[in-house]
Amino acid sequence: MQDEYIVKGNIIFTKELGKYEIFENGYIVIDGKFVKSVYKELPKKFSKLKILDYGHALIIPGFIDIHSHAPQFPNLGLGLDKELMPWLDSYTFPEEKKYSDIDYAKKVYSAFVKSLWKYGTTRSCVFATIHKNSTKLLMDLFAEAGLGAYVGKVNMNRNAPEYLLESAEESIHNTKELLDEYGKKYELVKPIITPRFVPTCSFELLKSLGELSKKYNVPVQSHLSENLSEISFVKKLHPKLKNYASVYNEAGLLGDLPTIMAHCIWLEEEEIELMVKKEAFIAHCPNSNNNLSSGIAPIRKLMKKGLNIGLGTDISGGHSVSMANVIASCAQVSKLKWLESNKSDKPLTTAELLYLATKGGGKFFGKVGSFEEGYEFDALIIDDSSLSIFKPLSVEERLEKFIYTGDDRNIKEIYVAGKKIEEPKQY
Amino acid sequence: MQDEYIVKGNIIFTKELGKYEIFENGYIVIDGKFVKSVYKELPKKFSKLKILDYGHALIIPGFIDIHSHAPQFPNLGLGLDKELMPWLDSYTFPEEKKYSDIDYAKKVYSAFVKSLWKYGTTRSCVFATIHKNSTKLLMDLFAEAGLGAYVGKVNMNRNAPEYLLESAEESIHNTKELLDEYGKKYELVKPIITPRFVPTCSFELLKSLGELSKKYNVPVQSHLSENLSEISFVKKLHPKLKNYASVYNEAGLLGDLPTIMAHCIWLEEEEIELMVKKEAFIAHCPNSNNNLSSGIAPIRKLMKKGLNIGLGTDISGGHSVSMANVIASCAQVSKLKWLESNKSDKPLTTAELLYLATKGGGKFFGKVGSFEEGYEFDALIIDDSSLSIFKPLSVEERLEKFIYTGDDRNIKEIYVAGKKIEEPKQY
Repeated sequence: MQDEYIVKGNIIFTKELGKYEIFENGYIVIDGKFVKSVYKELPKKFSKLKILDYGHALIIPGFIDIHSHAPQFPNLGLGLDKELMPWLDSYTFPEEKKYSDIDYAKKVYSAFVKSLWKYGTTRSCVFATIHKNSTKLLMDLFAEAGLGAYVGKVNMNRNAPEYLLESAEESIHNTKELLDEYGKKYELVKPIITPRFVPTCSFELLKSLGELSKKYNVPVQSHLSENLSEISFVKKLHPKLKNYASVYNEAGLLGDLPTIMAHCIWLEEEEIELMVKKEAFIAHCPNSNNNLSSGIAPIRKLMKKGLNIGLGTDISGGHSVSMANVIASCAQVSKLKWLESNKSDKPLTTAELLYLATKGGGKFFGKVGSFEEGYEFDALIIDDSSLSIFKPLSVEERLEKFIYTGDDRNIKEIYVAGKKIEEPKQY
Repeated sequence: MQDEYIVKGNIIFTKELGKYEIFENGYIVIDGKFVKSVYKELPKKFSKLKILDYGHALIIPGFIDIHSHAPQFPNLGLGLDKELMPWLDSYTFPEEKKYSDIDYAKKVYSAFVKSLWKYGTTRSCVFATIHKNSTKLLMDLFAEAGLGAYVGKVNMNRNAPEYLLESAEESIHNTKELLDEYGKKYELVKPIITPRFVPTCSFELLKSLGELSKKYNVPVQSHLSENLSEISFVKKLHPKLKNYASVYNEAGLLGDLPTIMAHCIWLEEEEIELMVKKEAFIAHCPNSNNNLSSGIAPIRKLMKKGLNIGLGTDISGGHSVSMANVIASCAQVSKLKWLESNKSDKPLTTAELLYLATKGGGKFFGKVGSFEEGYEFDALIIDDSSLSIFKPLSVEERLEKFIYTGDDRNIKEIYVAGKKIEEPKQY
């Protein structure tokens, strides 16, 4: 009974897509890392447990960001007058080069992790760079902070500046080293196989990564179908393969192990079917898709097909670390898509988007992103008293107002896997 | 010489659309309300003037918001799962009803004005409600704060809940009273003729407002062509008139005096030509256009036709008071429009958007929105030291980073018409 405690407040979460579960002045009973149950009235048998009473505050699941690039953190909000390919060349690659310097990496990565904490992102799927040492450092910093993450050493051996290329052998060798050292080092922070994307990885490299993923039982993340020029480039590189998704699939990198593909804006029907079959996840990154002129992903359609969908900041293609900001952006583009589809693909509601930003992406981490029994207790305590000063609002309206108008100042406390997380150290 | 002083810092503004003027560690010489000149090196003749040295800070023109609804401030971030018409009925009208209560109005309006100050909006074009007393109060609060504004008592005599309707006579009578009392009361705060939009104003009322506007030499603001259902409704109401814009025009409300029309998403070619001819302004409100599923306004096209364009938050259709947020949203939708137009309508650059958010909208106020000679000195002092910590950035990049990733915390001081503005009182 020692590890049991209770948090009290205005609890709101989504068990099912699009439907809020609301416990006004409710109780969450936590047992160690896990949610035991949620109550409107506290049963007598728990009356001796310690109650952390957060009063009028909102309590929601922690945000799950299933696509971002840690080394691009210094570029946040820069270079956004460019499209994907020129943006990579002029902003992204020159920045990523710097992470051969472990001191620079420590400075940026610790600030990045602190920023996730500030904005209430309890779990992330993150691209590092090709550099194994700074990738290890990033994993150590996540673990030190107490936040959950899959972190990938990026693999790339073609079509990038010389200074960011490795040989396929080196790339595999270093990835293996990481899997050996970090595969079981931390409970909440794990490695993930991370080919940057098809244009920068030879098929030989992709195949070896697919084998590695199976051998070590490690999940996969990459990019798919983001931008039309990128897609034609992939077709030129692999004229014999049916489509972009099949390149990953043939290499054993599409859903043989749990897989996240970022963007998926322009998927062909066959690619969609393949992804459904292989139970792959899509990381929907609307800020980035807008900023880099990539397009609007047809999320309603992909959801109807039964795909797993989570949300991603995709910094620094996305300009905001805030998942609340990503939710607002998702809502906006889904409304434009609704118009574009002649009102067949309905806009995503706030309740649906909360689901995608918590339980939807959380599914990649196991039982994460909800307050149902057996879920790891990741939570944000939100003091929205500065936002709702003119009239009484329902819990649902308060959540909506926080998402659209709140910011880091409203997030007062953060829990990950049952543990309250203090402000991470910035080096 | 008494009223002359100098501000020093990293000055950036747009004299021409799309082109930055940058004075790194430069000087703005201010004479009373006006900019006298901007210098890279200070001429000797000014060496005795007081210099306010803002060191490393950025200095940019104040933001100009040419479309917002003050009484909707409490609804910021609420009801955004709805389209325009149902949103009006369930959120907007019930809120606007409350402004018959002057105490409630004081509470909200003072918070609204303070919020504009916080986010660096030095001039605004604002809709109040039909209530003359709270409209007067809003003007008083703007004047007390020292911010510039056109404030309109809203006119409406049909197609709205009974509690928000006036007779045409009442509406004109009360508007006249306001023009008499407030036409010359303040230098920076002026009344503006504000029919809500065609659906809520009989043609008789519109015509009387047109006459009033001419008689008192007062500008006009309204809504035009926001949403497809709204447009068909207008066609039903006025089957004999060519189009939506011509209803205003026939009533003498489209550019006979300076006029702002908000949204203008679905204008017909003839309407565009009419607006160009009458030199009307368009208030582009991308957050609202997205949030209410209205569509993407074809701003590049409208700009090419020679229309006057400024930006608007349109709270609470828009969810953010921040004009920086509106700029980011404008950039995003312009990129989607570029794709939609088969890459014929180029995305708007950050430099173009700074222009629209300052000099573009500022033109409605006279010489406002630039640091050119003779312009009223409206400025924001921006401390972005928290944003740019990893590498040296150019002034241009720092501005971009502030727009995309900064917030009210970065805005350290605000000047309007040569005067430093202290934090407005919130009642």
